[in-house]
Amino acid sequence: MEKIEIMSDKMKGLDYFFYPKSVAVIGASEEENKIGHVILKNMIKAGFKGKLIPVNPHEKKILGLKCIKSVKEIKVDLAVIAVPAKIVPKIITECGQAKVKAAIIVSAGFNEIGNVKITKELFQAMQEFPEMRVLGPNCLGVLHVKKGIDTLFLPRERLGRTPDGRISFASQSGAIGSTLIDWASMKSYGINKFISFGNALDVTVTDLLEYLNKDKETKVICLYMEGLEEGRKFLEKAKKVSKQTPIVVLKGGVTTQGKKAAVSHTGSIAGEARVVKAAFKQANMIEATSFEKLFNYARVLSNEPLTKGKRVQIITDGGGYAVLAADFTIKNGLELAKMNEKNLRKIRQVVPPHAELGSIIDLTGDATTKMYKTAIETALKDKNIDMILLIVLFPPPLLEKEVVYEIIKLHKKQVKPMIVVSASGKYTEKQKAIMEKEFVPTFTFPKSAAESLKALYDYSLFRKKIKR
Amino acid sequence: MEKIEIMSDKMKGLDYFFYPKSVAVIGASEEENKIGHVILKNMIKAGFKGKLIPVNPHEKKILGLKCIKSVKEIKVDLAVIAVPAKIVPKIITECGQAKVKAAIIVSAGFNEIGNVKITKELFQAMQEFPEMRVLGPNCLGVLHVKKGIDTLFLPRERLGRTPDGRISFASQSGAIGSTLIDWASMKSYGINKFISFGNALDVTVTDLLEYLNKDKETKVICLYMEGLEEGRKFLEKAKKVSKQTPIVVLKGGVTTQGKKAAVSHTGSIAGEARVVKAAFKQANMIEATSFEKLFNYARVLSNEPLTKGKRVQIITDGGGYAVLAADFTIKNGLELAKMNEKNLRKIRQVVPPHAELGSIIDLTGDATTKMYKTAIETALKDKNIDMILLIVLFPPPLLEKEVVYEIIKLHKKQVKPMIVVSASGKYTEKQKAIMEKEFVPTFTFPKSAAESLKALYDYSLFRKKIKR
Repeated sequence: MEKIEIMSDKMKGLDYFFYPKSVAVIGASEEENKIGHVILKNMIKAGFKGKLIPVNPHEKKILGLKCIKSVKEIKVDLAVIAVPAKIVPKIITECGQAKVKAAIIVSAGFNEIGNVKITKELFQAMQEFPEMRVLGPNCLGVLHVKKGIDTLFLPRERLGRTPDGRISFASQSGAIGSTLIDWASMKSYGINKFISFGNALDVTVTDLLEYLNKDKETKVICLYMEGLEEGRKFLEKAKKVSKQTPIVVLKGGVTTQGKKAAVSHTGSIAGEARVVKAAFKQANMIEATSFEKLFNYARVLSNEPLTKGKRVQIITDGGGYAVLAADFTIKNGLELAKMNEKNLRKIRQVVPPHAELGSIIDLTGDATTKMYKTAIETALKDKNIDMILLIVLFPPPLLEKEVVYEIIKLHKKQVKPMIVVSASGKYTEKQKAIMEKEFVPTFTFPKSAAESLKALYDYSLFRKKIKR
Repeated sequence: MEKIEIMSDKMKGLDYFFYPKSVAVIGASEEENKIGHVILKNMIKAGFKGKLIPVNPHEKKILGLKCIKSVKEIKVDLAVIAVPAKIVPKIITECGQAKVKAAIIVSAGFNEIGNVKITKELFQAMQEFPEMRVLGPNCLGVLHVKKGIDTLFLPRERLGRTPDGRISFASQSGAIGSTLIDWASMKSYGINKFISFGNALDVTVTDLLEYLNKDKETKVICLYMEGLEEGRKFLEKAKKVSKQTPIVVLKGGVTTQGKKAAVSHTGSIAGEARVVKAAFKQANMIEATSFEKLFNYARVLSNEPLTKGKRVQIITDGGGYAVLAADFTIKNGLELAKMNEKNLRKIRQVVPPHAELGSIIDLTGDATTKMYKTAIETALKDKNIDMILLIVLFPPPLLEKEVVYEIIKLHKKQVKPMIVVSASGKYTEKQKAIMEKEFVPTFTFPKSAAESLKALYDYSLFRKKIKR
């Protein structure tokens, strides 16, 4: 099923969050600790190519950019609002009057801390301009590296930014969303669009699902959710989207004021979690039970073709890791592939005599790039094999660095799912980063690799089922 | 129960693997790709302070060190043997004649590949000199950074070495053991003694258990085992040792020639695993089900005091992470602590008005070092609290770097177990590395932190029980 591209006007409005031609930062400041300063700086560092305008009635220039006194002086696509909560309604009215297309309210201090009065005021101001889409309040906004959009108010020295990729990630919690971005950046995991949607007074997670499903750059949608606010509406949308774009979801704890106090010795959250789990499943979403799994599943689902079956060929240069991988493959309900005898003989010709070629292809600690190349090429052609789990330990000195580029080249063919397990340290992490940037999913230990192949297999089965 | 220090002569012999005054590298070479070259280089780089002697009949100097033709020319404590398998028996005889105290045979090509003849020859040669302890063959030997011993034949550029620590780690598999060392080094986890024991013709894992239990520098023993060769003997020893030193064990797959072929679609390994699991439990060992857990449990058990109870106080600067931590605390059978009202008021005086101080102490995104200091000091004194789970998110700009040193200082008091959760990227990893080097256990996500506190609680309960 191909992605459908008919978008309502309301949906099209979301484009301005990710592809604006001009951005105003309202509340920009020369003071380094101020949120408005950090956002402006990050937009500059992100390399935004459009017009970038600081808005501050008391300054002439900020960070070398000419300042305006009010957003009303100018026509902009996107306004990022970083002013105290109490004047946000007024600013939103100004944005509406200035025909701003989209606004991100990063300011906090609304319903999330029980401030009903100011939240109502804000909501009323928003109602006056229904065409202007609003993200937040109490959010970090958007990171879209490809277009140089970075409204996260956390300094780049302290919080890394991800390379471009095929996963888009929407998070209810700004703190968790951004620390996951930081973690993913350290791992060189690519993210296309990151959205911290906060209190969701206008743009909801349901809207984002619909938008990202239609977004051609998004191959997988990742969600971090604490509550299930729009309940039924969200689940219905998710059920539809899942048929075209895999949704990987992680359910967090509940952080709103009221519920937080409810966290107690009784573990009442666990009960709620069971209900949510069942709902996710019914909507055909893929539930991740840890932060690592969220991105593990998403990386495999976004970068690998769907699999035709569950037979996994393990190719390795370390016996111990391979047997663990075999163990986890079986534990996850997948099978070990049995390579055709003729093909095994082909590999036999290039490997050392003591290499074992059984249900595992063990190239031994003497493995070279050539051996890996032959084994992978053969496995890609073998009809008894559905997926390849490649184990590459880099410390043995005989293994040339070139193996990384050979794997990338073979992976690009996208004949079958192929992922890499590679423990462990700094040298290895560098090799893995090179592969990640070229969209080869890498893992440190066999367990998570096998689990991720299982997620891919399950989703492939689901897609096959709905096709019938 | 204090560690007992009575050692048999045979046990004392093991000292020469870790504290030799002189080391001969037999098979040292000028060729960079040769194992004997890499080992000699690593011993130099490790900063070994004793006499280091390359042995090679064809060279005068290797890496600037004067070479001898045969080990018989000299008296050394430790010989590291890196020559082809077929001449190893002869070399072992020479070592015995030269009254070498301990020998590490890194050479492979013995029983692990079914080479019975040469294995028998080696075994016979060893029998002639029962006082000489032998590690291996088919192993990586020893890494003991404190004394500059590094017989691992993997280049330091490709495989990192750990800082000194309180955990000792014995691994049956050299490849898995060394990649875990590499991984631990990247995380700045301290390791006191690492031993890859390979085929264990003389020194067995049971011997190592006994030795490490008596070793004052070892607070926790980590084991990676593939088979259970010495079965009953090992388990009996483990049962005794566990009463004094926690043993964390990870069972890998089975990599010996015969069993590897047995890995099949039937998943027969799973059955064996259940038996082993039960045996570990009976011996009061702590089983880790993943590589991460092996070091997670070990770090907490080696660096924290035993806990008096299961009440965990969560202190945080990020609400979402705290609620997840609370959730996992409860899921792991622990409880959320309830701080005394008077103490809560103390903290109330230093935190922002919107900070929530319930079963979780949330210092908010405006947290400062001072707030953390007050909250931790108060929690350390509060009698309703047994353990502290500290969440520190570093990206918010208000949090000073000093918080790391304040945590280290308070942790050093060892009043109660206290561990740190801190997601995520490069900046944060630097802060975590500083803490790890000062023995504060750090975690990326709340799940593993809660699991590790549970492991500490279980072991503390066990110790309490045997004390009665």
